[in-house]
Order: sequence, then C-alpha cells, then structure tokens
Amino acid sequence: MALIVQKYGGTSVANLDRIANVAKNVIRVKEEGNQVAVVLSAMSGETDRLIQLAQKAAPDPDLREYDALISTGEQVTVSLLAIMLNGMGYKAKSFLGFQVPVLTDRAYSKARIQTVKKNLVLRELKKGTIVIMAGFQGVDNENNITTLGRGGSDTSAVALAAALKADVCDIYTDVDGVYTTDPNIYDKARRLDHITYDEMLEMARAGAKVLAPRSVELAKNYNVPVYVKSSFSSEGGTLVTKETKNMEKEIVSGVTYDRDQAKVTVIHVPDRPGIAAQIFAPLAKNNIMVDMIIQNVSIHGFTDLTFTVSKKEVNEVKRLITRAAKDVGADKVEVDDNVAKVSVIGVGMISHSGVAAKIFEALFKENINIMMISTSEIKVSCIVEAKYTQLAVTAIHEAFGLDRGR
Amino acid sequence: MALIVQKYGGTSVANLDRIANVAKNVIRVKEEGNQVAVVLSAMSGETDRLIQLAQKAAPDPDLREYDALISTGEQVTVSLLAIMLNGMGYKAKSFLGFQVPVLTDRAYSKARIQTVKKNLVLRELKKGTIVIMAGFQGVDNENNITTLGRGGSDTSAVALAAALKADVCDIYTDVDGVYTTDPNIYDKARRLDHITYDEMLEMARAGAKVLAPRSVELAKNYNVPVYVKSSFSSEGGTLVTKETKNMEKEIVSGVTYDRDQAKVTVIHVPDRPGIAAQIFAPLAKNNIMVDMIIQNVSIHGFTDLTFTVSKKEVNEVKRLITRAAKDVGADKVEVDDNVAKVSVIGVGMISHSGVAAKIFEALFKENINIMMISTSEIKVSCIVEAKYTQLAVTAIHEAFGLDRGR
Repeated sequence: MALIVQKYGGTSVANLDRIANVAKNVIRVKEEGNQVAVVLSAMSGETDRLIQLAQKAAPDPDLREYDALISTGEQVTVSLLAIMLNGMGYKAKSFLGFQVPVLTDRAYSKARIQTVKKNLVLRELKKGTIVIMAGFQGVDNENNITTLGRGGSDTSAVALAAALKADVCDIYTDVDGVYTTDPNIYDKARRLDHITYDEMLEMARAGAKVLAPRSVELAKNYNVPVYVKSSFSSEGGTLVTKETKNMEKEIVSGVTYDRDQAKVTVIHVPDRPGIAAQIFAPLAKNNIMVDMIIQNVSIHGFTDLTFTVSKKEVNEVKRLITRAAKDVGADKVEVDDNVAKVSVIGVGMISHSGVAAKIFEALFKENINIMMISTSEIKVSCIVEAKYTQLAVTAIHEAFGLDRGR
Repeated sequence: MALIVQKYGGTSVANLDRIANVAKNVIRVKEEGNQVAVVLSAMSGETDRLIQLAQKAAPDPDLREYDALISTGEQVTVSLLAIMLNGMGYKAKSFLGFQVPVLTDRAYSKARIQTVKKNLVLRELKKGTIVIMAGFQGVDNENNITTLGRGGSDTSAVALAAALKADVCDIYTDVDGVYTTDPNIYDKARRLDHITYDEMLEMARAGAKVLAPRSVELAKNYNVPVYVKSSFSSEGGTLVTKETKNMEKEIVSGVTYDRDQAKVTVIHVPDRPGIAAQIFAPLAKNNIMVDMIIQNVSIHGFTDLTFTVSKKEVNEVKRLITRAAKDVGADKVEVDDNVAKVSVIGVGMISHSGVAAKIFEALFKENINIMMISTSEIKVSCIVEAKYTQLAVTAIHEAFGLDRGR
C-alpha cells in the first residue's frame, strides 16, 4: 500500500464528464490498495473568468479580495469531485485551504506556502477517505484567504505530498510528460523518461509550462518523486527525481522558451556601491520577480543596467524603476517587451565545455542576434527578438541532436 | 452615528452594474456618518446553477460537499463588492462564514446559526471599514462549511444585526415592502408601512417570500428592527418591529399563499399512544419540516393522519413515511402535491371573533373546497386545490376590504 498524491489540472476537470474521468482514475488507484489524496485546479478558463470579473469591478483590484474571489474556482471542482465519488459509493471529502489548513504568508496573489498541516488529512486517509484538497489556495495566520499565483496547484500538490511523506506525487496534465522542447513549436521534440529536479527546475523557470518552478523546488527540497502524466492516456510519463547513478547524464536534456519576457534597461547609472540595491529594492518590495540581470562594465563612472521581468508586470515595473532611476541620477529607462528567452538545460553541462559556444554558433548560423546571455551550472539562457523564438529553438535542438535520444 | 446592517438579495447583485448600485447605496449610508455592515446573497440564478451541477454530479449529492459547492456564490459577490468599494477609495473587507465566524450546527443545507462572533466585525467597523459578510453560509465546530437553506441570507443579516446590536437591519429586495398579498396575483394588493414580528412571521411561514421565516424569528427574539426596502427605489418600505401601542390593530393585515405544498395522508393508522411520534420521528431525524398536521377522530381504534410538507421533499417523505406506516401497521400512504396553502394573518384576530367564518364563507361563495384547516392565534390557513390559489386569495382580500387600507 502506498500513499499517493494526485494532482489534476484545469483541462482535466474542465466539465462534469472530465471530472467523471478523474473520479474513475482516482477509484482505480484507490482500489489497487493505495491511500489517495487528490489536489485539483479550477475548471480551465474559470480562474481567467474570475480575474476578468475582478478587473471589471476595479482596474487595480484589492488583492485580499481578489484572492477571496479567484479561490472559488477550486472550491467548485473539489466539491464536485467529492459529490461524484460519494455518489459512486466511495467515501471522499473536500478540504479548502483554511480547512487543511495550508498556511501561507500574506503576499496575496503570489503567496508562499509555509506549512501544510498534515494531521487532519492523515486521519482521514487512515479512515479510508479519499481526500480532495483545493489547489492554489491557502490562508495566512489571520485566516485571510491567499492564492499562490499561476501554477499554484502544482505547488499545493507537492507541498501536500511532502507533508504526508507520500510515495509519489502524480501530476496529471494535458501532455504526457516532459519534452526536450515544446512539441507545438518543434515537432521533433522527444519525451524524456527521467529528468532531475535541477533540470526540471531550470526548464520550468526558463518557460516550460508543464510544472510550476516552485513546485519543483519544493519537490527537490523534500525529495518528493514527481511523475508527470497525461490525464487522457495511460501511456508515457516523465519521472522527476534526484540524480541517480544509473541515470545517464545528458549533456543537454531540453530547450525551452519563454515569450513572457520584457527587457528593461536603466541607462547611464552612476556606478557607486549600493546603486543596484537602490534600484531593485522597490521591485522586491512589490514582490516582482526579476529574472536575468546584466550590468555592463563601468565607463567614466557610469554603467547601464539591464534586466528582464514578466511582461504582465512591465507597466508596474516601468513606474517603479523610472522613479528609482530618477532618485539615483540615471539618465532614462528603456523598455522592450518584444523579446523572448531561449534556454538550454542539462546536468551534463557542468562537465562538458563548449556547450555555450555550440549554442551561440547555432544562433549565429541563423543570423539571430543575442541581446542578453545568462548562464548557470546547468543552463544557458539567451534573450532574442521574439520573432526568432521558434527558429532559435529548432536550431539549438538540431545542433545538439536532441531528437535522437539518449 | 448608527450601526446599520444592510442585506442585498440575489437580484440586487445579479451583475456588476447592479453591484455598482449597491456600492453607491452603501457609500451614501456610510457618508451619512454610519457604521455599515453589508450581507450579500449570490448573484440571482447562481445558487440554482450550482445546485444543478451538484445534481448532475450525483442524483443525491453528499450534503457536506453540496454546501461547500453552493457557498461559493456568496463568496463571489462579497469579494466583488469589496473590490469595487476599495476601487472607489473606501476601505472594505469581505468575510466568509469561517472568517467571522458564523457558527452553526451541522445540519448541512439547512443549518441553524448558533452564534455570530462579533469581535472581529466590530473591530473592523470601529476602524471605519465597511464590512461585507457572505450570507447563507457558516461553519460548524469542526470548520466544515454549512449553508442555511433558502432565504438564509436574510437570517445571516438579522443574526449579524443581533450580534452587533445594530440600530436597524435594512433588507433590500426587489419589492418595495410587505404587501397585503402578492401583487403578482392580485393587483389591488396594498403595501403596509408597519407590520409586527408575529404577523410577519406568520406571513413568511405561510408563503410570503419577502423575508425568510427564520430571519423574522431571530429579529423578534433579539428585537432587531427590520426595514424591508427596494434596491431599485428609495420610495416605500415596510418596518417590521414589535407591536407598539401606537400601532392600529388590523383585524387582518395580509393574505398569503404557498404553492410549495404537498399533502400526505397515512390511512387507517392504529390509534394507540406514541403512534404519531413513531411516524414523525424519521422526518425530524432527516430535518424535514412538517407544516400542518391533522389527525381525524378515531373510529373503531383506527384514524387517518394528514400533514403537509414542502413539495421538494415529497419523494424523501414518501419513502420515509411508507416505511414508518408499515412499521406501525397502517394501511397505506397517499400523496397529493397538487395543493396550495392560503393563509390569512392579523394580530387583530385574537380579539375579533368571526374571522375564520368570514374566510370560509368567502371560499364557499367561489365554490372552493377546503381540504385542511389550521389556525393559530393570528393566522388561519386553508389547503385548497392548487388551481384555486389566485381565486381564493382574491376572494379573501376583497372580503376583508384589504385594498382600502387602515
């Protein structure tokens, strides 16, 4: 008997027929003798509908209320699945963020989970109950409803699996696993059977949408095996675990892209200690994630500072940074949201030189200009003009022969 | 400065435009220097949509999950109003049942409020916050979500007003007050300026839809003045209070009808002590409200037992009563759901004889057969064939000259 956490995304619970399929799958796993805890997203489209309602109610909605509003989507799906399972003769109970409880900080709309209290859920599982937890939501220490931001349900599922010390966290989604790149952009993309947390993390951060980055971080920290599977087929799947000796090290395991990028440049910044801190402090204070940061070498005591943020936040960033730039005596702020990030990921990079060179060569051959570069131990990211996204992905995928497999 | 509780029904919050009107009204009352707590229903139609979803998910939905599902409707409206008010520069906060908290028993789908904890709400009101509480919902002592049944938001509002010792509880609805009868069925119906709790209670119980009976009970018990007003007009309104010396006593203040009635007869019941208890126990256990009960005089040790229940529960009642009837050795159970209840209400009845006789005469003149009669100190109810509802209401309204007023 294993303790299995399953997570189903929005397309898997898009309507009652789909939820009935989820019920069947849950029952199958339960009947195999396992304890099953299920985490659900809202019906696909529902969260967007609620967000639109909020934005029509006020252009800049109060975030406490925004979270109370958009958390209703998951409440609907968890109770519907519980109704179905009970109707089919299985004991099932839904639990919302405040009921588990899933405790978070108070960063409304992008809260971070602090603890998932396991006692109530474990007690129900031991009684044979199928536990169904609402993803995406939690409560802070004053019982205010919080939400975790996009992809939050993945994080909810992994956090629950970690708290319960579950044997595996199955993430059911509309694709059958993790691919070397997005099959929609390049049809020779190949599904990976295994991937390490670190690779998955870099891929998720670099724009692969199959798993939310924070869920992978959590899985890595608590060593939760995550199995990415299709809701619509029992074939395939990709297991995300820590690196094992048996795992063949790929030099490169995947190429990702992220079109949700905007490049911001602060021009002619006086180069003195503490300047960067002064410029980025207001972003941190407003919980805005900055991705790549590049500072040019200083000339005559001045430098240029370039960084990327999510396109969605570019207006707020522009407002905050223009003020900060003025305060530090910089010349001006330029914004370019017509860019994309293309990233190459692989644990094998650490021990193989020349990976970056090969990437630059592949892009050069296609005449693609690289606007920014950033590297980590297992990742190389390049900012390019948005229109070159597909071409860049294809060129790199071919250069490393990713379609041929391990 | 007064402390005012306002409640808006489903049609008043049916869409964003209507919610904007509610926001304006709330602000007007707030700007007059009052503390304002608002209680909202779900958008009209939304609760029914959710109920249909539940019933499609399972014919007999698990009630814990049903309540978790249908309570989302109010969560949407309270957060939307809070977003709007904040967007207009007013500090406003929504509170759900678990946040206030509104403590109830565990009778899912028809829970009763035990306590509304006032401290959090009072603290926010003192800070100048407009408090917006979700109607219809609460939590039991284990944090399970419960709902209060149809009209539950009225009850939520009066319970909040009672807990806060509010100066008044304004119930905004789609009519401009309480009428001598339903204007939709008889166009000479007249709006009442005042009505006593007892009269309102009997009218609500007898089918007048303007206020839920339990809300009136609560208002009476805690002496909360309730003002029934139109959401769409500042004219009119009916004040519901205890009887005052200045109030002219009407012999009859209103005629109501209720088409949600089914008549159940248990035929040839052995007449021995405890029989009625045995028959009704399973209904009480399942929280089914029985309205009128009539037991004929016993002949040769056998009697017939007739009672009325809500049409919605008639299938469950039939199942439960058929079993109970068998257990006690009765002959059979007959169900007639083609009936309606017409009731005449007035505090003046107590001191005026002949009211019942006048009613029976009015019905007789129209050849309407009376199937059951029940009376209280201030009410006479008759069960008639459903097709005679309008005719019976009109005949009685005319017989007492109700259109002419006090």
